[in-house]
Amino acid sequence: MNVNQGGRALPQRTVAFDRETNAVLLIEQRLLPHEFKIVAVKNFRATAAAIQSMVVRGAGAIGATAAYGLAQGALAFLGADPRKFSTHMETVYQTLKQARPTAVDPVNAMNEVRTAMLPGETVAEQQALALAAAEEFANSDVAHCRAIGVHGAKLIRNGMRILTHCNAGWLAFVDVGSATAPIYAAQAQGKTFHVFCDETRPRSQGATLTAWELAQQKIPHQIIADNAAGHLMQRGEIDLVIVGSDRVLGRTGEVANKIGTYTKAVLAARHGVPFYVAIPLSTIDWNLKRGLDIPIEEREEAEVLGAWGVNRAGKRQYLRVANPTSGARNPGFDVTPPDLITGIITPLGILAPKELWKRRKNLGGPD
Amino acid sequence: MNVNQGGRALPQRTVAFDRETNAVLLIEQRLLPHEFKIVAVKNFRATAAAIQSMVVRGAGAIGATAAYGLAQGALAFLGADPRKFSTHMETVYQTLKQARPTAVDPVNAMNEVRTAMLPGETVAEQQALALAAAEEFANSDVAHCRAIGVHGAKLIRNGMRILTHCNAGWLAFVDVGSATAPIYAAQAQGKTFHVFCDETRPRSQGATLTAWELAQQKIPHQIIADNAAGHLMQRGEIDLVIVGSDRVLGRTGEVANKIGTYTKAVLAARHGVPFYVAIPLSTIDWNLKRGLDIPIEEREEAEVLGAWGVNRAGKRQYLRVANPTSGARNPGFDVTPPDLITGIITPLGILAPKELWKRRKNLGGPD
Repeated sequence: MNVNQGGRALPQRTVAFDRETNAVLLIEQRLLPHEFKIVAVKNFRATAAAIQSMVVRGAGAIGATAAYGLAQGALAFLGADPRKFSTHMETVYQTLKQARPTAVDPVNAMNEVRTAMLPGETVAEQQALALAAAEEFANSDVAHCRAIGVHGAKLIRNGMRILTHCNAGWLAFVDVGSATAPIYAAQAQGKTFHVFCDETRPRSQGATLTAWELAQQKIPHQIIADNAAGHLMQRGEIDLVIVGSDRVLGRTGEVANKIGTYTKAVLAARHGVPFYVAIPLSTIDWNLKRGLDIPIEEREEAEVLGAWGVNRAGKRQYLRVANPTSGARNPGFDVTPPDLITGIITPLGILAPKELWKRRKNLGGPD
Repeated sequence: MNVNQGGRALPQRTVAFDRETNAVLLIEQRLLPHEFKIVAVKNFRATAAAIQSMVVRGAGAIGATAAYGLAQGALAFLGADPRKFSTHMETVYQTLKQARPTAVDPVNAMNEVRTAMLPGETVAEQQALALAAAEEFANSDVAHCRAIGVHGAKLIRNGMRILTHCNAGWLAFVDVGSATAPIYAAQAQGKTFHVFCDETRPRSQGATLTAWELAQQKIPHQIIADNAAGHLMQRGEIDLVIVGSDRVLGRTGEVANKIGTYTKAVLAARHGVPFYVAIPLSTIDWNLKRGLDIPIEEREEAEVLGAWGVNRAGKRQYLRVANPTSGARNPGFDVTPPDLITGIITPLGILAPKELWKRRKNLGGPD
């Protein structure tokens, strides 16, 4: 999508790769919405750290980052010993995998790259195949998001008020986004509508990233406190909810996503507001048997106890908001059961959550 | 309740009155939890402004503040002309009433004071009666909260994990609080339990005021993002919800309270977690026929778009969190229907919401 840079709207991917310097290029998302900056990450450990510290976040973006990180690790290997290379690649893989334990996208992405490397007979061949596969992964991520947009835009009618939670926008992918894909596609079709962005405490990705994205694309929107959606639904002021996901269980249709998603699904069900989850196929986990087994990260207390923003001088800063002698609980994700979900918007069409397993062969699942 | 001041735990009411200087004494709640300060408010317009700007907030506290404000306005009148006094008192009444349109407590409190003034034959007599009635109102507020505690403490068992939203603590009343009254009473009975404080964006009263209160009384607690309660209920980690209210409709059992309360009630109902609303009788509105007619304040956008806290130097400061080019919707309150409420904890006992109207004669309602 476009970013306003120096008065001009220039196209910019969230994740890219520079072959000459073997660097992963990332939009430094922790500086947004107050500053726009591209960082060049120079080695696979730094790439894992960038995923872990949320320089880059969001299902597709960390998938592509892990894919590029694996290729980056491969390309950094000096020598021609296939066994040493194999040991090295296992370290690269595990390091990137452990950067974000709740997400399935990095693992799926890296598995694709590893599979693509198999035909390589030499280290050099495997290195070349790794980079080609990572590039292919990033390009297909963009194509999948565009396809989500085509299907999802059919749900959007003129005058609708759409709620979204957290950021499943183009900043969460290589480009276009999942939850935002129908929004951008509907805008391209000339439809007019309004978006409510949940603030999404404690990290405020809705107020910062999603609002920034929508502003770049000139889509009418307002930020609301996470507490406000229930009231707005009660008064009939929300017509549609679209969120993304970090992991959808193919066997059950359960959806893991940013903390607070489950709450919005419960409210939407009570008010008969359609609740959709937009995902690329790589977000589907075909192995896990129940949502209760999805690991829920407990993140640091400081996120809940304060806030990051900019002061009057425009400088980024953290403030302690909470009582200085109190602590916090900070689960990062929650799990929404399939009975609360109207449909899953995939690149192949919109499905009921329970249909995923039935149609697993078409969706890249097991036999 | 007690406040740690210079290493000593000293009793301190939220609202008091100084006869010598005709000043309403308020804990400056906007400085909490980072600074403890008492402000002396010198005239009724400043008292109305203190209510409006949330120097003082919470049902009982603004009731007592308005009662004292009415007495303050009466005492400031110079002269002995009863008709001029009457006109003056109408101005005082309307000024204080309009400071917080959603709340019913200031109106009820001021009506009590006005009724008590009626037997006064001279301006001086009416002035004296006004002050006595305001003092009586404040003292009975404390007694009512203690009675709420006696009834509500029966709901609390050892090991329970209790959720509360916003601040309906002693800072929201003259002392003791409503939602916190059962908690303080149970603590006094030697029970052990854990409290989760909803952060309560956009003004964060849970993270600041409720957490500060509980810390002063040494009650184990943790702050959670407003997004987290759904997940915790889903995992069976919340046993009881107690909130306060700005207005309970006596005819329907509907409860107006801080934005986000409705959401917690919906979640509690889904998970079979008991949901209680603790209120003094003055919070009951016997006139309004439906919750939809309760005026919902739209507060300023800056609350949602940023946060107040303290920086490393301990200085209070506002940060802009959200995207600089985005706006916000900011409804301050929501309305919870009676079917989601397990019981209303009153000074006279615990009632189902629908029982309020049946037992209106005992509760001070109409015939």
